[in-house]
Amino acid sequence: MRNPLSDKVIKMKPSGIRKFFDIVSEMPDAISLGVGEPDFDTPWNVREEGIYALEKGRTFYTSNAGLLELREAICDYTDRRFKIAYNPKNEVLLTVGGSEGIDVALRAMLNPGDEVIVPEPCFVSYVPCVELAGGVPVTVSLKNENEFRLTREQLEDAITDKTKVLIISYPNNPTGAIMEREDLEALVDVIIKHDLYVISDEIYSELTYKSEHVSIASLSGMRDRTIVINGFSKAFAMTGWRLGYALGPSMIIEQMTKIHQFAIMCAPTVSQYAAVVAMRDCEKDVANMRVAYDQRRRFLLNAFKEMGLPCFEPYGAFYMFPCIKEFDMTSEEFATRLLQSKKVAVVPGDAFGACGEGFLRISYAYSLEELKVAIDRIAEFVAELRLEKS
Amino acid sequence: MRNPLSDKVIKMKPSGIRKFFDIVSEMPDAISLGVGEPDFDTPWNVREEGIYALEKGRTFYTSNAGLLELREAICDYTDRRFKIAYNPKNEVLLTVGGSEGIDVALRAMLNPGDEVIVPEPCFVSYVPCVELAGGVPVTVSLKNENEFRLTREQLEDAITDKTKVLIISYPNNPTGAIMEREDLEALVDVIIKHDLYVISDEIYSELTYKSEHVSIASLSGMRDRTIVINGFSKAFAMTGWRLGYALGPSMIIEQMTKIHQFAIMCAPTVSQYAAVVAMRDCEKDVANMRVAYDQRRRFLLNAFKEMGLPCFEPYGAFYMFPCIKEFDMTSEEFATRLLQSKKVAVVPGDAFGACGEGFLRISYAYSLEELKVAIDRIAEFVAELRLEKS
Repeated sequence: MRNPLSDKVIKMKPSGIRKFFDIVSEMPDAISLGVGEPDFDTPWNVREEGIYALEKGRTFYTSNAGLLELREAICDYTDRRFKIAYNPKNEVLLTVGGSEGIDVALRAMLNPGDEVIVPEPCFVSYVPCVELAGGVPVTVSLKNENEFRLTREQLEDAITDKTKVLIISYPNNPTGAIMEREDLEALVDVIIKHDLYVISDEIYSELTYKSEHVSIASLSGMRDRTIVINGFSKAFAMTGWRLGYALGPSMIIEQMTKIHQFAIMCAPTVSQYAAVVAMRDCEKDVANMRVAYDQRRRFLLNAFKEMGLPCFEPYGAFYMFPCIKEFDMTSEEFATRLLQSKKVAVVPGDAFGACGEGFLRISYAYSLEELKVAIDRIAEFVAELRLEKS
Repeated sequence: MRNPLSDKVIKMKPSGIRKFFDIVSEMPDAISLGVGEPDFDTPWNVREEGIYALEKGRTFYTSNAGLLELREAICDYTDRRFKIAYNPKNEVLLTVGGSEGIDVALRAMLNPGDEVIVPEPCFVSYVPCVELAGGVPVTVSLKNENEFRLTREQLEDAITDKTKVLIISYPNNPTGAIMEREDLEALVDVIIKHDLYVISDEIYSELTYKSEHVSIASLSGMRDRTIVINGFSKAFAMTGWRLGYALGPSMIIEQMTKIHQFAIMCAPTVSQYAAVVAMRDCEKDVANMRVAYDQRRRFLLNAFKEMGLPCFEPYGAFYMFPCIKEFDMTSEEFATRLLQSKKVAVVPGDAFGACGEGFLRISYAYSLEELKVAIDRIAEFVAELRLEKS
């Protein structure tokens, strides 16, 4: 029998995040600071609306783009929160989480050989989705000294005649970095001069701890060249509901909807009904979760300072990205030894791109109690390593 | 600004099904026999399990492949119903409906230029998904006189050096055709001789009205070269839950899971919990729906006979495919005039491939009462057309 598989797909590495969690799941007393998922339950009024939809039998297909009522609620929310107006009729597509939005945007936009600039470290899906769509990922290594923001110079250096799309993602997974208005503004004329399109993954837009999130689509000249990816998973603790959305110019959203129609049909219906409540009546729940994340963030930042582990202050998402280069071992080695000797799981930074080597992604989507136990164990481990070295 | 879009995607035609339903939705007294969706509510015990999952806060990510408990239930069901054994650990992937399964299977298997044989008329997604995955669709025109089964000769004629995959889909949408064991057996040695792989879309496998469904994967030599696509939408009236599955050799399922991990993450969690009940405790619900569909099927078959509209007897799914060639107009013209003058919506056969021209797809996933009103109007329309001609 011949090989049934696509060459391109065989070459793609599976996500480096999961491996550790297969080990963790068989280690009952291990603590994981690894998964990028809120520890909170979905707000009750959202679940209640889901229950109501099930009771009423609202389980049929919706239109391909999704329930108009939800698309309207999303446009109201986006205008209210981020000051960008979209037309619910033809500038919104409901997707199966943010992931599908990224995949479909790339499939709609790329011709074979088109280059896509992907600043790393970043979410594990961008590079494989670019490759699957026939594009060529051009990675840019973000720097700790820039607090992992993309600079104008780095962007300019990465652009070639073939560049078509830039993917940015702030607040960032895995670094927790944000880019504020002036940071984004520095990129705009480069983007416009080179006639690039932007896919801006803003799934953590509700989780910032310094200044309100600014979408690059809200900057002058950017709306018509940006696809904003957002969703319910992180801000509303709705990961398993699998519901996200893409916002952008109708010309692109229309083609994305066509692909979505053939490959997916529509996003889950009960999730769509419930998400209307998330858009309209969950401001307080989101605020409460934000306060809890911020408290944990400050606890961890202080703990890393106390153990002398360099870590820039991350103002977004729910991740810290401390540097472990002093120990002369790879991130993978560090994470493996930490798990084996102290039973704490974290993700090696190179799972998010080669330039993440020497760092760890630590999620604080865990209770303060868990974080305290975990941080004590990490501090012990770091002390032991330093003793070994001396 | 330059064109943001992929050339390939711009060229893809949107589905021909939806157009009519945009018109219907603005025509309050119109009857639609168009949508391929059960009119039944999801069985109550399945919805109840979904409600329970929401109450308990079971709304987190599952593993990429899906809940092991559901994969086990699917393997038990598949073994019990269709006599094929799959390993729940590595031969099952839970997908966002059958649609995602088809898309991901093609993305996992095709290299640029690989040919995929697509017998038409067929579900609207196959050709675009082949094109999106970089493959070349080679369509085969199925014949009314063969009751729209794929023959050994047709298959052989379509094979070239570049053929890698054959897509088959029985019970069929839009024709209602089935292929019985001996029909499928006639294809097997051709498939093996030419070392082809098969994607077998069996989403209507529970809806047959003559003999039990036979999966091509159960035939000798075929298991390791077949990806079976199935799901909950049609048999269990669970369309909006967006849950399907792919079964196949671990080598292919593993690569499909990798793509699914990056592009989708996991299927909706609440749907996964609820679907365990569908697999275990819904035999009677499915049987009741099957009886209802069969009653409607026989009603329509008789009605078409009475109005003298040629229609072979379809033994599967919930579609009839009557021939309207006598009227010297296209299917689209016929459907448009029928909608405008009698307010009954049906889908022109050419929406499912050029060889569907001259036919209509009539869904009987509607109540007998609705079908009776609709059929009276169609009979009037046919009588008027014949009068015009004479």
